[in-house]
Amino acid sequence: MIFKKQYYQPAMNDRSTNNLSSSSSGSLLFSNIQKYVHLNTDEEELVWSFFKTVNYAKKAVFLQQGDACRKFYFVEKGSVRAFHTNIEGKESTVMFAVEDWWITDMGAFLNEKSASISMETLDDCLLFELDSLSMKKLLEVIPKLEKYFRILFQRAYIREQQRALDAISIPLEKRYLDFLEKYPKIVKMVTQKQIASYLGVTPEFLSTIKNRIPS
Amino acid sequence: MIFKKQYYQPAMNDRSTNNLSSSSSGSLLFSNIQKYVHLNTDEEELVWSFFKTVNYAKKAVFLQQGDACRKFYFVEKGSVRAFHTNIEGKESTVMFAVEDWWITDMGAFLNEKSASISMETLDDCLLFELDSLSMKKLLEVIPKLEKYFRILFQRAYIREQQRALDAISIPLEKRYLDFLEKYPKIVKMVTQKQIASYLGVTPEFLSTIKNRIPS
Repeated sequence: MIFKKQYYQPAMNDRSTNNLSSSSSGSLLFSNIQKYVHLNTDEEELVWSFFKTVNYAKKAVFLQQGDACRKFYFVEKGSVRAFHTNIEGKESTVMFAVEDWWITDMGAFLNEKSASISMETLDDCLLFELDSLSMKKLLEVIPKLEKYFRILFQRAYIREQQRALDAISIPLEKRYLDFLEKYPKIVKMVTQKQIASYLGVTPEFLSTIKNRIPS
Repeated sequence: MIFKKQYYQPAMNDRSTNNLSSSSSGSLLFSNIQKYVHLNTDEEELVWSFFKTVNYAKKAVFLQQGDACRKFYFVEKGSVRAFHTNIEGKESTVMFAVEDWWITDMGAFLNEKSASISMETLDDCLLFELDSLSMKKLLEVIPKLEKYFRILFQRAYIREQQRALDAISIPLEKRYLDFLEKYPKIVKMVTQKQIASYLGVTPEFLSTIKNRIPS
């Protein structure tokens, strides 16, 4: 059973889905790619042609659990929370993405299954969307981007492995402090309940632990 | 603090670390690669030259938590368990790898940090080792392998995401039955305590749940 919470809330008067045609200069996405792969101007233009730019207002649910997930999102501006709602309606925060991060339900995106998570914006967002067909074509026309995505997924895999390991090896107090350090912007925008579910504990337990931390 | 359990136990009289020079025909590794990338005979030979083959006997700890982790292992034959030992000496099973799977402490491998896990063979194993420098060179000489590793890491990322999601959304009984189905060979070789820690529960809780499953 899926609990619908909120639908698309375009941030502007219209939801712009035009292909990007402006220069890539200054874009976080392009600096991110250029760290690993050199693209010339023609290639940059070509890459842009595969992306769409979308603005969402704060608190817009732009992916609904149970729906198809055909987009891979790069957060150019703003921040995003991903959450799962179980059969009893209990919501667990599973991921955050801040500026310069990619986010999607990768299993649903790659295997064309319905999404296991919902995603909502935590503030006004500018997202660059790459749909699954575009990603496939992009890698065919610029094969050197395979390296970029290889590194991206290798690091994402490490992050998930590390998170599972942290949960069994690092005391909650330290994991909470690490969270504050890693996501200073997010902390101001989410509830303690959402942070607790991200850390895999009850809000009550997190509260007890927080009281032990010297301010 | 690291709890040393057991050291290298070569499966044969000697631990063969010669480069592979035989034909790749029949190797699980090469069928695995050829699913995604076509390699001609010369390229196959070149790929082989980057790997080393190693035999380990059952119950050999071939990676010790706290040591450098410079190898990415492909399980050609046998099966492997990865576990973390916390500061109190409590051991948690974090991963298994069966034939046709890759395994390593990816964070330590990529970032040249010391390993957060140990790895032991569950039965006699034939592993193909790719060290981090060899992997880098291999991708330079055969760039189309970037696609293979991109797909590999993308799937590994999905697996980790799914496992975290399963832990919060799927009842333990179903997760245990899924485990039996996914790892029929492993089940016979590990203790209930190891399965319980892999599923993130106490052995007592797993035992209670198992008693509820109709045989």
